[in-house]
Amino acid sequence: MSDEFYLSLAINKAWDYQLLTYPNPAVGAVILDENGKILSICAHQKAGEAHAELNATKEALESKDSSLKSIFAAAKNPNELYNLIIQNHRNLLKNSTYYVTLEPCAHQGKTPPCASLILAMGAKRVVIGSRDYGEHAKGGAEFLTQNGVEVKLDVCKTRCDELLEPFLRWQSGNFTFFKIALTQNGVATGGVISNLASRTHTHRLRALAELMVVGGATVCTDRPTLDARLISGRAPDILIYSSKTEFDLQIPLFNIPNRKIEISNSIEPAFKKRFVMIEGGENFLRNLDSRVDWILIYRSNEFKSANNINLDMKVKILHRSIFGDGELLWCKRLDLGINA
Amino acid sequence: MSDEFYLSLAINKAWDYQLLTYPNPAVGAVILDENGKILSICAHQKAGEAHAELNATKEALESKDSSLKSIFAAAKNPNELYNLIIQNHRNLLKNSTYYVTLEPCAHQGKTPPCASLILAMGAKRVVIGSRDYGEHAKGGAEFLTQNGVEVKLDVCKTRCDELLEPFLRWQSGNFTFFKIALTQNGVATGGVISNLASRTHTHRLRALAELMVVGGATVCTDRPTLDARLISGRAPDILIYSSKTEFDLQIPLFNIPNRKIEISNSIEPAFKKRFVMIEGGENFLRNLDSRVDWILIYRSNEFKSANNINLDMKVKILHRSIFGDGELLWCKRLDLGINA
Ligand SMILES: [Zn+2]
Ligand SMILES: [Zn+2]
Repeated sequence: MSDEFYLSLAINKAWDYQLLTYPNPAVGAVILDENGKILSICAHQKAGEAHAELNATKEALESKDSSLKSIFAAAKNPNELYNLIIQNHRNLLKNSTYYVTLEPCAHQGKTPPCASLILAMGAKRVVIGSRDYGEHAKGGAEFLTQNGVEVKLDVCKTRCDELLEPFLRWQSGNFTFFKIALTQNGVATGGVISNLASRTHTHRLRALAELMVVGGATVCTDRPTLDARLISGRAPDILIYSSKTEFDLQIPLFNIPNRKIEISNSIEPAFKKRFVMIEGGENFLRNLDSRVDWILIYRSNEFKSANNINLDMKVKILHRSIFGDGELLWCKRLDLGINA
Repeated sequence: MSDEFYLSLAINKAWDYQLLTYPNPAVGAVILDENGKILSICAHQKAGEAHAELNATKEALESKDSSLKSIFAAAKNPNELYNLIIQNHRNLLKNSTYYVTLEPCAHQGKTPPCASLILAMGAKRVVIGSRDYGEHAKGGAEFLTQNGVEVKLDVCKTRCDELLEPFLRWQSGNFTFFKIALTQNGVATGGVISNLASRTHTHRLRALAELMVVGGATVCTDRPTLDARLISGRAPDILIYSSKTEFDLQIPLFNIPNRKIEISNSIEPAFKKRFVMIEGGENFLRNLDSRVDWILIYRSNEFKSANNINLDMKVKILHRSIFGDGELLWCKRLDLGINA
């Protein structure tokens, strides 16, 4: 099978944790042993947790020798895991191949650099999607090459770069996405997503968002809570985008402790935040200016007898995830037309 | 990686040729070498051509020894390929593992049985999704077991059975699917699919369909040709489902040589055919009774400022295929509500 085939497995795995790694990038890694057998397909899952390469190395070693599981289970953090791997790997990954969607880091962060880990495992070859141009982390490919590891760059480059887009945007100031739930025939289902997996995913995103924006009409109609209770997460601060200044304070979202709420007829304050989530329906999407980066569409498995959201907009579908009986479409807005 | 992982690769590959194998079932096969490296991921592509196992065996051998490519290229049909493989395999697939979505056939068809091929290759293990209950082909798993090959049955059984559903239905009399093109926001785009890959796929299906059903309103409005010119294929016979009995004979579909056209206010004649394709829009789907087995949705990548198709219907999404900048959703109707 081709390098593109194996890197695609890493890309798909990384998408499972897209945005959930905030403020880190979504990264996936696949390891093949010296005979070309797939040992692991892993991703970076959450900031503060192990990088994709560390997760994949752990799983690959465990698949070679299951007795390592109990040894690695003793690690209390990624740094300890890194050290346990260095001490116990017994060259089990000698001549392995690593596939990584992003150039392995070359800096000491919460763990020692992934490039050093890969070298220590005795990998023969590293296949990389996107290059890391970050001041701190860059240089992993060069380090590996200088130490005799064969490195191939820019494989599936477009798809790996798309995976990095939110990270690059929030690093440079702001990433904003619009979340909408639609049926198969384009009916916006408002705040209600019937699928538990999708709702849990929404709550994960809310718990990470620096700011959540919601339209005044949605607040009045849906009377939402807009918290992250399904994962016992932090409820995000809220910007209510509305020309109205007074709302019924019995609406649940106003009664969350330690939540900041701003009401504004301008959406500009949102774009000063790094990671912004917008939830709304048709009118909100229609009235938004073109500054939304991505649109996340939760699509249910049913046709509903009601009118669709009615607007012109072209999207590039970057990825599809299955969520229970529905799907999540990760879309990049290509243009946004506004209909009177 | 798990058996489910590898069988999923075979399932996904088989879906690429779903319905296109008519009257044969869609089948996929994956081969791992003795070290667990993936050698090939193949499918049965078309009736009369090689079975999935034969295609996968050919590709696996070629990946082990590329000089076999020129030898196998001389085969003029699957039977010759089978014989060339038997003569030239040099035990390169000794101790391999086969993953097949359907139990390998045990009968002499256009080729000798796949079960014998797998045994001849010296496979160690065969992992099977669905069992073959067909009178002629069944017995492959038993044959392999009796000859010392380890066989595992019923892996990913539900997904493999879904893959077989059209085959089982047309074998027992009739399989009918409804094809519709929708935008992201549920607008039916009528006969026009902008995406060349999707249009080509439609023409492949038309060329195989025993009968194509189209609504009278669509005939008058779209004035379609309904042929398979993109693949230089046979134009299907047509049933125009309409209470009208007179149509403008200048409409292109009436001017295809050797095409039978029936006009009827009953759709019943369609269900006497084995493989029926229905193309239509909202009203047709709404007015159809519940005898449609599957709905194929070609979904474009745009939102369009127009009304959606407006009906209640719950579907199970069996598979998604990417088609250029759009997608094809393979859906099974779970219920069909009719709105006044
Ligand atoms: Zn790293
Ligand atoms: Zn066969």
